[in-house]
Amino acid sequence: MTLTGRHLISINDLSNEEIELVIEIADQMHSALERKEQLHYCDGKELYTIFYEASTRTRSSFETAMHRLGGTVVSHAEAQTTSSVAKGENIADTVRVLEKYADIMVMRHPLDGSTRLAADHSQIPIISGGDGSHEHPTQTLLDLYTIKEEKGNIKGMNVALCGDLRHGRTVHSLAVALARFGAEITCIAPEGFELPDHIRNALKDYKCKLTEYKSLEDVDSEGSLAIHHSKGKERHQEGFMNFLLERLDVLYFTRLQRERFSSREATETDQESYRINKQLLAMSREDAVIMHPLPRINELAYEVDQDKRAAYFRQAGYGVPVRMALIALILGVVQAKPVRGVRTVPGKLPEEIPGVTCSNEHCVTNIEGYATPKFYRDPHDPQALKCYYCDWVNKRIDQ
Amino acid sequence: MTLTGRHLISINDLSNEEIELVIEIADQMHSALERKEQLHYCDGKELYTIFYEASTRTRSSFETAMHRLGGTVVSHAEAQTTSSVAKGENIADTVRVLEKYADIMVMRHPLDGSTRLAADHSQIPIISGGDGSHEHPTQTLLDLYTIKEEKGNIKGMNVALCGDLRHGRTVHSLAVALARFGAEITCIAPEGFELPDHIRNALKDYKCKLTEYKSLEDVDSEGSLAIHHSKGKERHQEGFMNFLLERLDVLYFTRLQRERFSSREATETDQESYRINKQLLAMSREDAVIMHPLPRINELAYEVDQDKRAAYFRQAGYGVPVRMALIALILGVVQAKPVRGVRTVPGKLPEEIPGVTCSNEHCVTNIEGYATPKFYRDPHDPQALKCYYCDWVNKRIDQ
Amino acid sequence: MTLTGRHLISINDLSNEEIELVIEIADQMHSALERKEQLHYCDGKELYTIFYEASTRTRSSFETAMHRLGGTVVSHAEAQTTSSVAKGENIADTVRVLEKYADIMVMRHPLDGSTRLAADHSQIPIISGGDGSHEHPTQTLLDLYTIKEEKGNIKGMNVALCGDLRHGRTVHSLAVALARFGAEITCIAPEGFELPDHIRNALKDYKCKLTEYKSLEDVDSEGSLAIHHSKGKERHQEGFMNFLLERLDVLYFTRLQRERFSSREATETDQESYRINKQLLAMSREDAVIMHPLPRINELAYEVDQDKRAAYFRQAGYGVPVRMALIALILGVVQAKPVRGVRTVPGKLPEEIPGVTCSNEHCVTNIEGYATPKFYRDPHDPQALKCYYCDWVNKRIDQ
Repeated sequence: MTLTGRHLISINDLSNEEIELVIEIADQMHSALERKEQLHYCDGKELYTIFYEASTRTRSSFETAMHRLGGTVVSHAEAQTTSSVAKGENIADTVRVLEKYADIMVMRHPLDGSTRLAADHSQIPIISGGDGSHEHPTQTLLDLYTIKEEKGNIKGMNVALCGDLRHGRTVHSLAVALARFGAEITCIAPEGFELPDHIRNALKDYKCKLTEYKSLEDVDSEGSLAIHHSKGKERHQEGFMNFLLERLDVLYFTRLQRERFSSREATETDQESYRINKQLLAMSREDAVIMHPLPRINELAYEVDQDKRAAYFRQAGYGVPVRMALIALILGVVQAKPVRGVRTVPGKLPEEIPGVTCSNEHCVTNIEGYATPKFYRDPHDPQALKCYYCDWVNKRIDQ
Repeated sequence: MTLTGRHLISINDLSNEEIELVIEIADQMHSALERKEQLHYCDGKELYTIFYEASTRTRSSFETAMHRLGGTVVSHAEAQTTSSVAKGENIADTVRVLEKYADIMVMRHPLDGSTRLAADHSQIPIISGGDGSHEHPTQTLLDLYTIKEEKGNIKGMNVALCGDLRHGRTVHSLAVALARFGAEITCIAPEGFELPDHIRNALKDYKCKLTEYKSLEDVDSEGSLAIHHSKGKERHQEGFMNFLLERLDVLYFTRLQRERFSSREATETDQESYRINKQLLAMSREDAVIMHPLPRINELAYEVDQDKRAAYFRQAGYGVPVRMALIALILGVVQAKPVRGVRTVPGKLPEEIPGVTCSNEHCVTNIEGYATPKFYRDPHDPQALKCYYCDWVNKRIDQ
Repeated sequence: MTLTGRHLISINDLSNEEIELVIEIADQMHSALERKEQLHYCDGKELYTIFYEASTRTRSSFETAMHRLGGTVVSHAEAQTTSSVAKGENIADTVRVLEKYADIMVMRHPLDGSTRLAADHSQIPIISGGDGSHEHPTQTLLDLYTIKEEKGNIKGMNVALCGDLRHGRTVHSLAVALARFGAEITCIAPEGFELPDHIRNALKDYKCKLTEYKSLEDVDSEGSLAIHHSKGKERHQEGFMNFLLERLDVLYFTRLQRERFSSREATETDQESYRINKQLLAMSREDAVIMHPLPRINELAYEVDQDKRAAYFRQAGYGVPVRMALIALILGVVQAKPVRGVRTVPGKLPEEIPGVTCSNEHCVTNIEGYATPKFYRDPHDPQALKCYYCDWVNKRIDQ
C-alpha cells in the first residue's frame, strides 16, 4: 500500500510506518531546498487551495511547497465570502466541481468533520488544512518533523504540553501521535483547559505515561512536597520544576485564549503560569526543544527567541518540506517503496445507525442535510460510538 | 478572420462557425487533459483575472485553464474591496492600467454592459466572466460543449429550459445560441419568471419553435387535454409530460431564487414544480442530458446525481477545456484555419444618438460618467433601439 | 557594493548611482518585454506579496514582474483580515515565518515605518510596497523611470508638483529624488496641503530651487504682477502661467482628497485650480510630460488622455520593467557591475536614546510593543532627531 491517491484528513489515516515515510521524504525535500535545487516533480500538476477560514501559514506553505515542486496553484483564500457557498452551495457539490479543476486539493473549513465529508465526494485527493476544532494533520506532521530535525528522532520523547490543551486541535493530534511513538507526556493546563477525556483515553490505549498539572507553580509545589521537601531551602526553591525540566526533550506551548477565560478572572499573572521565559530556559536541558504552533500571544517571552533551543520559527519553516513530501507522495511523483504494516485507525469502519445523529453540534453531519451520520466502534472503548466524521464520542444506544 | 486578438463579451460576438471552432479546439484540449499531457501553448503568457463579484467556478476554471496551457495568472478575486475602485477609479482607467500587466484579461462586473465598456478601452483582449444580468458568454460555450460531448453534436436539439428564465443571463444566451443551431425549445417557468420578450423575439428571428408552460403540472394537464384525453385514466395520469420527455434531448434547469417570489406565496410545493426527481427521470429518454449551471438549490433532487444522464458536474468540468480553447485561440497560439462566414451580430454598429440614454438603470453607461451611450438598430426589430452595451431594448424616438 | 540581498524600504536606501543602475536594468527588461522574450532569470524563485491595505497596481505589477522573470508568487491580498494578524500576531513574528516561504517579499502596511521594522527581522530581502503615509520607494523609481523614458534622462528637470503635496508619500519621495538629480521644483498646493517642512528642508539640502503657489490662479496673478504687468492686457491674461509652462519638463499631479478639505468649503471650482485640461496643455511645451500616480479623481480632464504628452497610463505600465529590475538585482540574478559611490542616506545610523519615543502616533514603534524606538541625527539639520523607522522629525532633547 502506498500514499498515492489517498486523502489525508486525520493523522490517524497514517500508520507509524507511513508517518516515518513522510518524514524521510520531507528530509530529502529539505536538503533539496537547502541546495536551492530546482525540482520538477510536479511540473504540470495543479493544486487547489480552498480556505473557508483565515490562514497565513498553512495556505502559504502549501502554495510554496507546490511551487517548489514545479507545480501551479489556484488559490481560493476567502471561500466563505467569495465562493458559491454564499449562494447556498453545499460541500459535496462544491467538491464535485472543484475536483475537475486540479490534481489535488487542500481544504480548511470551520465545521468538525467537514474535510472528511469533502473527501467522501471527491475523486481527487484532499488534504485537510484543518476542520473546526477537530484535526489539523499536516500541523502534526510538521511538529513531528521538527522533533526529528531537532532531536534526531521521534521515538520515546519526554514531552511537556502547556497552555490550552482542550480546544487546540493541534495539540490533540500531536499528543496521540507522540504516544504512538512511545512518548511520556506531561500536561500543564489551567482548570477547564485540560486535555479532553477522549484524548486521555487514546493516550492510555498506547500505554503513554501521562502526568497533569494546573500551572507551572503547581508543578513546582507538588514536586517540592512530593520529592524534594527534605532537601533544604535552596533545593526547595528550584523544586520539582528543575527536576522535570532536566528530563524534558520537548516543551510545546500553545496560545491561552483569553476570551475563553469565562469561569474566572484572567490576569496577567495567571498567564505567566503558562509562559516560558529566561528563568525556565536556564533550568532546561541543553538539547531541549521549545515549540509553538504560532501565532503566540505571550506564552513565549521575546527573550526566549534568541536561544538556540527556541525552535518555533524553524518549526513553521519545516511546513514547506513536509507539505512538499505529502503532495509528492500523494500525487505519486516520488519513488517510495511501499511501506509494510500499513493500516488506518483500527476499527474505523463507518456504519450507519438508523435514527442516531452525532451529538456534536459543530459536526458537519448536523449542518449539511444530505450527509448521512456514520459511526465506528472503538475496540479500546466498547462503550463509545464514535462519529466517523468528527470522532466525537457519542453514547452507545444499541447496547 | 480569426479569433486572435478579439474580445469575447457576448456569445453574439461569435459566428456559428466560430462557435464550432471553439468546440473543436476544446475537444483537442479535452483529450490533452485526459492524456495528462503537459501543454506549452501559453508559456510566458500572463492572464489577469479581475472579479468584482464572487465566483468559484468561472475564476477557478479560467485560472486552471491558463495553468494547463503553461501560462501564469495574476488573480484579483475581490476587486470591489481590494482595488483602486475603492478609491473611486472608473472602469476605463482601471483597464488602461491593467492592460500593461498581462496578455489577456477576464473580467466579471455587476453592471450590465460593463465588460463591453472595458473592452472599448483595452488594448489586450478581454473575455467577459459575466456582466450583471446581461451575458456570460463562456458559460454558454461550455453549455454548448456539454451538449456536443453528451449528444455528439449541437444541431437541431429538442431542449427544455426550466426554472427562472427571466433573470438568468446564462439561459438567455444559451436559448439564442441553440436557436441559431436549429433547436426546438420548451420553456417551463412560473409567472413572472418567463423568458423576456427580447429573447422570445430573438428566438423567432431564428425560426425557433417555442412552447411555454407555467409548471410541470401545467405541461401535464395541457398535454392531457390537448392530445391524450380520450386515451383513458392511466395514460391520462402520465399525460403529455411523458410525451414531451420522450422527445427531449436536453433538460436544462436553473435556480428558482426564492427571494424573488415577491408576487405570491412561495411554498415547497411550488418549487417542486420546477424540479427534477427520479419519477421524471424514469420518463426521460435514455440519452437525455440533465444540465444545470450550478450552484443548485433544490431543482435537482440528490437522487438524480447517480444517474448517468445527470451531466451537471461534468458540465462544470468542461469549463476547463472550453476556456483553454478560448484563451489559446484569442492569444493566437493554436493553429486554426480562418473560418468562413464570420460576422458579429448583424447590424450591431454602434451609433451615438444625441440626448438618448439607455433606460436600463443597471447599464454601465448610466453609472460611469465618461461613457457615451451608443445604440444599434436591429433589422429584425425596426421599432427597437438597442443599447450597444447592455442590449436593452429602448423605444425608438427618432421614428 | 551591490543591491543583492538588500532591502528596499526608502528611496534613500539607494545612492544616485544605484538608482541609475535600476533604471538601466529596467531599460533592458523593458526591451525584453517588447520583444516578448521569455525570461528565466527567476526560474525556481518565489515571491511573497503581503498587503495589509488595498492595492491594484503595486501588487499586480510586482506579481506580473515576477512571472515575466520566470518566477512564482504566493499572494496574500487581504492580510488584515485573512492572516494571523487577526489572531494578534505582530509584524516581527509574521516576518520570521514568511521568510521561510519565499526568496523575496513585498509588503504594504498601514503604519509608518512598518516595512523597516519588518526588514529588521527578515532574513530574506523585503521591498516596501508602501508604509502608511511615509514612503513608497518603487513608485518613486517608476516615476523616475517614466521621466527617463519620456525625456531621455532624469537630471536637471524642471518639474511642477500639483495637488495634495502634504499627505502624498509618493510626491515626497519623488521631490527629494529629483532634487538629488538637480531638479528645479515648482509646487502648486492649496493651504494646508503644502509640502511639509522636512521635505522643504531636504530639498534645500540638495540646493534645489523651490517655488510655491497656492493655486493655478495664484501662479498666474503672481506672475503677472511680478513680471509681466507692464506688458499690456493680452500678455497679462496669459500671465506668468504661460511663462512657467513654457519652461516645465514635467507636470506631476496628485489626487486632491476632498474629504480632507475640512478647513473650508471645497467646491468644484476650487478643484479646477489643481486640474489640467486642454487650455493648460495648449500652453505647455511640446515635450512636456504629464504624470499622475493614479487613480485620478478629476485632476486630469478626460480630454487630456488623448494627448501624447499624457504619460500617466504609460507610467503605470513602467511599473513592470522597474519592478522586474529590482527583483532581479536584489535576487542577484542579473549581471551588474558593482556601482561606485554607494551609500545610504548620510548619517542614518540608528541609535537608541533611553526614554525617547517617536512623536508620530502612526509610527510602528508606538504600536508594536517589542519594537525599540531608534533615531538618527541628520548632519544637515542639527536640531532634528529623526525616527529611524518613519523619519519623523522629533525635537532633540539631548542638546
